[in-house]
Amino acid sequence: MKNVVLKENERIDDLKLKGLKIIQNTDGFCFGMDAVLLSSFCEIRKNATIVDLGTGTGIIPLLIWGKNQVKKIYGIEIQEEVAQMAKRTVEMNNLEDSIQIINMDLNNAPEKLGINIFDTVISNPPYMLQGGGIINPEDKKAISRHEITCTLEDVIRTGSRLLKHNGSFFMVHRPHRIVDIFCLLREYKLEPKKIRFVHPKVEDKPNLVLIKSVKASKPELKFEKPLYVYNDDGTYTEEIYKIYGMEKR
Amino acid sequence: MKNVVLKENERIDDLKLKGLKIIQNTDGFCFGMDAVLLSSFCEIRKNATIVDLGTGTGIIPLLIWGKNQVKKIYGIEIQEEVAQMAKRTVEMNNLEDSIQIINMDLNNAPEKLGINIFDTVISNPPYMLQGGGIINPEDKKAISRHEITCTLEDVIRTGSRLLKHNGSFFMVHRPHRIVDIFCLLREYKLEPKKIRFVHPKVEDKPNLVLIKSVKASKPELKFEKPLYVYNDDGTYTEEIYKIYGMEKR
Repeated sequence: MKNVVLKENERIDDLKLKGLKIIQNTDGFCFGMDAVLLSSFCEIRKNATIVDLGTGTGIIPLLIWGKNQVKKIYGIEIQEEVAQMAKRTVEMNNLEDSIQIINMDLNNAPEKLGINIFDTVISNPPYMLQGGGIINPEDKKAISRHEITCTLEDVIRTGSRLLKHNGSFFMVHRPHRIVDIFCLLREYKLEPKKIRFVHPKVEDKPNLVLIKSVKASKPELKFEKPLYVYNDDGTYTEEIYKIYGMEKR
Repeated sequence: MKNVVLKENERIDDLKLKGLKIIQNTDGFCFGMDAVLLSSFCEIRKNATIVDLGTGTGIIPLLIWGKNQVKKIYGIEIQEEVAQMAKRTVEMNNLEDSIQIINMDLNNAPEKLGINIFDTVISNPPYMLQGGGIINPEDKKAISRHEITCTLEDVIRTGSRLLKHNGSFFMVHRPHRIVDIFCLLREYKLEPKKIRFVHPKVEDKPNLVLIKSVKASKPELKFEKPLYVYNDDGTYTEEIYKIYGMEKR
């Protein structure tokens, strides 16, 4: 591992996957289970070229690289400070040839990277609609969570523009947004093909949804069985341990 | 109970609800669990006026009448023989004042019954797209199951036309059609507000979905916790017993 300069409130975490490590800012935004579940949900073809829209710490490019044989992954991040941190993570892991972090508005990604050329687009976008409330535009957590710098439509339209015919778009989001999500996916020719709901426990309603769409494909949505995170006794389920690549204790 | 004339292959079943009985044709189509779950999912305001699109045996009007205080329920059925059977069921139960079965194409219902006037529309429509295969148009089961005489769009457009502002539309369908369903509901100003997936067992993907939409309402979809039909040992779950109004043995 290369030496790396850490800034205030930054720490290095071990991803327990091919020796990968990640820099996170405890005062800003650390990656969550949704990024891990999304990375596991993605089906990546060998030597795929991939774009991650709103990459944050770069967690999704790292996990996708760690679990697949990919050609190149671009991570797009609008927040300069967060993008710089992700770049240092890539350098620390010596992955500059495989992963490139680009600090820009994702709406400009197709012009910069290419239109209709990518195999896969991935996104763990901000979940919350920007309401009437006041949000500090300097707040990194708020930008990661609310549709301040990009809307759901921006993410879906950009994903569609980047993807080649039959390319796949993988997204994680909140279940209560699925009507918006489905209508926008159809509008931008990304047909929903596979869906999986994530429930905290068996008796809970879902709190996350994983969706695979394919560009210019025919309608045929397949449901996967639900993913339960916790057992009744509060321990993680076998499947969560498996996704995290850990043995159940 | 009034005397009633039964035709070949017809039998009378007891609904175990306020003494209600139903005529079914063992050679045609008998009601299933989906109709029972849908009736239980419906929220019916006191003295509501209701239309059931594609009423079949009339099971949904009967169950809705049995569980709520309603003003009037119209059951629309395009198959003459099935509609006649449902009419005899209504007469047998002395419910002519509360339930009216009308033998017609549901597309004509708004002109016949009124536009923008109903509190509630309910539908357990044919689930299957009409494919390229040959289906006997005389086949009552096929007409109930496939989109031969009406499409999903017919059902949703008609529901929207019948409903008053803020009226509710309740539907049961197969999960793999939810993209079509959501996009059509939005197109016809029926906003999805509540959704519940039905899973055979905890580890199974859902095989039914219950959706409540409200006409001209703002987007806000709420998920309900999943409904599981069977326990691991193959017995019905407590909730299914409760919905059927039976004590667990």
